[in-house]
Amino acid sequence: MSQKKDIYTESVELHEKHHGKIEVYSKVPIRNRHDLSLAYTPGVAAVCREIARDKNLAYKYTLKANTIAIVTDGSRVLSLGNVGGHAAIPVMEGKALLFRKLADIDAFPICFEKAHKGIAEDIRNIAPVFGGIALEDISAPRCFEIEEALQGIGIPVMHDDQHGTAVVVLAALINACRVTGKRFEDLNIVVSGAGAAGYAITRMLRCIGYNPDLCSSVNDIIVCDSKGIIHRNREGLYANKYKFIIAGQTNRSGRTGTLEDAMGGADVCIGVSVPAIITPAMVRSMNQDPVIFAMANPVPEILPHDALMAGAAIVGTGRGEYPNQINYALAFPGIFRGALDVHATRISDEMKVAAAHALADYVLHPQKNRILPPVLDRDVVTAVAKAVSAAAITSGCARSFD
Amino acid sequence: MSQKKDIYTESVELHEKHHGKIEVYSKVPIRNRHDLSLAYTPGVAAVCREIARDKNLAYKYTLKANTIAIVTDGSRVLSLGNVGGHAAIPVMEGKALLFRKLADIDAFPICFEKAHKGIAEDIRNIAPVFGGIALEDISAPRCFEIEEALQGIGIPVMHDDQHGTAVVVLAALINACRVTGKRFEDLNIVVSGAGAAGYAITRMLRCIGYNPDLCSSVNDIIVCDSKGIIHRNREGLYANKYKFIIAGQTNRSGRTGTLEDAMGGADVCIGVSVPAIITPAMVRSMNQDPVIFAMANPVPEILPHDALMAGAAIVGTGRGEYPNQINYALAFPGIFRGALDVHATRISDEMKVAAAHALADYVLHPQKNRILPPVLDRDVVTAVAKAVSAAAITSGCARSFD
Repeated sequence: MSQKKDIYTESVELHEKHHGKIEVYSKVPIRNRHDLSLAYTPGVAAVCREIARDKNLAYKYTLKANTIAIVTDGSRVLSLGNVGGHAAIPVMEGKALLFRKLADIDAFPICFEKAHKGIAEDIRNIAPVFGGIALEDISAPRCFEIEEALQGIGIPVMHDDQHGTAVVVLAALINACRVTGKRFEDLNIVVSGAGAAGYAITRMLRCIGYNPDLCSSVNDIIVCDSKGIIHRNREGLYANKYKFIIAGQTNRSGRTGTLEDAMGGADVCIGVSVPAIITPAMVRSMNQDPVIFAMANPVPEILPHDALMAGAAIVGTGRGEYPNQINYALAFPGIFRGALDVHATRISDEMKVAAAHALADYVLHPQKNRILPPVLDRDVVTAVAKAVSAAAITSGCARSFD
Repeated sequence: MSQKKDIYTESVELHEKHHGKIEVYSKVPIRNRHDLSLAYTPGVAAVCREIARDKNLAYKYTLKANTIAIVTDGSRVLSLGNVGGHAAIPVMEGKALLFRKLADIDAFPICFEKAHKGIAEDIRNIAPVFGGIALEDISAPRCFEIEEALQGIGIPVMHDDQHGTAVVVLAALINACRVTGKRFEDLNIVVSGAGAAGYAITRMLRCIGYNPDLCSSVNDIIVCDSKGIIHRNREGLYANKYKFIIAGQTNRSGRTGTLEDAMGGADVCIGVSVPAIITPAMVRSMNQDPVIFAMANPVPEILPHDALMAGAAIVGTGRGEYPNQINYALAFPGIFRGALDVHATRISDEMKVAAAHALADYVLHPQKNRILPPVLDRDVVTAVAKAVSAAAITSGCARSFD
C-alpha cells in the first residue's frame, strides 16, 4: 500500500513539473523567410489547391497520414467513473505516449466536456485532420452506439476498451488451447462482465456479426452481469439493446442463476468485471484444465495463486507483475499502425482477427506461463501492424490513390 | 512569376516529403514499466482525481497549460475561398509552426469538414484540452457570430484574421501619427473592405464596444465594400447585422458614392480588400501627408512606389519585401502567449489595446520606413506577451488558483 501511495504522489509531481505529457512539434525547419514561404504562405496555397481537388491527398500532404484522435467524454475513466472531459485528459495524454512510443503514431487527445447526445456527429465533424479515431473510456452502452454511428465515415474508428481487449483475449485463448490441447470450437466459456469489454469479447468469440468463415465460434458462452446469468427470459432485458443481443446469441442451454451457477463445467472463465468475485470453489467446479483470465483492475476477479491452487491450468490477469498479462496495449498500437500504413477506411473484422492471430503466433512455443508476447515491445507492434495492413488490403479497407 | 512557381512546387514537395509539418511528441521519458506507471496507469488516476475535484487544475497537470486549437471550417482559406476542412489543413499546420517557433505554444489544428450551423457548440464541447482557441480562415459574417457565441466559455477565443490584424493596424497607426505629427483623435480614415479584418479594424479605431477610457477614437471612419461607401440610408443594409453596425457608427458626414468619393480629404486609407483598386489620383485627393496601408494579398490595393510618387507620407503593405509589413503574425503569437501565461479566461479589449501599444512602443524611433517591429522576432513576441499578461490581470481576465 505504501508503495502504491508513492506511485500516486510521484505521478502527480511528474504531471505538475511538465504541465502534461505531450507537445506539438515541427517536422520542418523554419530558419528564415524562405522556409516560411514554403511551410506557410504563399507556397502552402499550392498544397491547399491540390487537396481541394481531391481530399484523399490530405494523406499525402498533411498530418492526417500519421495522426489519430484519442476521443473521450470522460464518462468512464479508469475505475474512477464519470469524471468528465477535464479529468480524463491525463489518461488520454498517457495513451498518446503509448501510441508515440510503440507505434510512432501522432496521437492527440480530444476530450468532450461531458457526455452528450450529439457526440458521434461532433466527432464526424472534426475528422478531417485525423487518419483514425480511438474511442476511449466511454461508458456502455453509449460506447457501442457512438462506435456504430461512426462506421463508414471513411477513417477507422475503434473503441479500444472493447476491441483491443477482445483481440488480446482471442490471442490468449488461441494459445491457451495450444497449451492445454483443448479445441477452440469445443470451448464452453463464462464471461463475467457485460460492459464494453465483455460485449466485444463475446461478440468476437461467438462470431456475432463477424464473417463465420473468418473465425470459428466457440461452443457456447454464458455471460454474467451484476444481476447474474444473462438469459432470454430474464426480466428487463429489452431496456438494453446490447444485453438483448447477448441473450439471443449466448447461453444455448438456457442456464439461469448466478456466476457460480454459470461456472460449473466451463472450460474458460473470462473476467472483465469486479475484484474478487471468483472463488476457488468455482474454479474447482469447472471442466478439466480450466483457463482463467481475471482482468478486473486493479484487483483481479481471483488472484493467480488462488486460481492455480484450485486447479487452473492457465491464469492470465490485467497486471504486469503476474505471468500472462492480458493488456489491450498489446493490440491497439499495432492495429492503428497497420490501419494508418494503408490509409484504411475502417477497421474490419478481418483486421481484428488478423491482429489476434499475429499476437498468438508471435509466441513461438506457448507455455502455461507464456501465452502472450510481452507488452511494450515494438517488434510485437510491427508484427501486428503487418498482419493488420495485409488484412485491410484483402478485406477491401485499404485506400488507394488515383 | 517563375520564381513564384518555384515556391509552389517546392512547397508541394516539402509537404509530400514529411506528410505534413507537425508531430505530437512526448515530454516525459517512458523507458520502463515504472515510468509508464507514473505517466499512465495506475499512477495517473491520482492526477485525474485531483482534476475531478477542481477542473481548473487541468492547467497545472495537463497540456491545457500551453495548448491552443487552431480552428477552421475551411470556408475562407487564403485567397482560395471555401475549399473545406481538408484543404485547409496545410494552412493550419503552418500556423501551428508559427505558434511553436515564435511563442513556444503547442498548437493543434481542428478542421471542421465544412461550415455548419452548430460549429460554435462543437468548439465549446471540445474545449477541455485547450487553453485557448484561435479561429482562422472562417468567412464573414459567420466568423463574427462564432466568435461572439464563444465569449464566456472560460478560455480565450480569438479570430486572428480580425483582431490580429486590427491590433497591428492600431500599432502602425500610432507610430504613423508619431512620424507625421498627425493627432490620432483628428484622423479621418477610409477603410476599404468590410470583411472580417475591415470590421475589426473599424471597431477598434472607433472604440465600438471598447471601453472609451481605453483607446481614443479617431475622428471618423468611412468604410467601403464592393458596393461603395456604407451609409445609413443604403438599401439592403438590414441583411447583414455587421454592416448595419458599421453604418450606425461610422460616416458621420453621411457621404455616399464610391471608394474614390470616400478618399477625398482623408488622412489615412486602410485597404483590406482587393488588389489595385486605389489609384494615384485617389491618393492625391487625400489630406496632407496621407498614410496608406494597402494589405490586400498577394497584390496590394496600390503598389508602395505608386503611392509614394502620388505623395503618400507612409505606406505599409502585407508583404515582407516592402518596408512596414503589417502582418498579423506580429500580434497573435504574443497575444496567445500572454493569455496562456496567466491562464486567461478570455481576451479583453484591454489585452488587445495593450498588445498594440507594446508593438508600437517596441519601435524606439519610428520612421517613415519603420513604423513596426520586424516579423518573426521572438523578442517582439515576448514584449507583446508581457503587456498582454499585465492587461489580463488588470482587466480581471487572469485565472487564479485556490
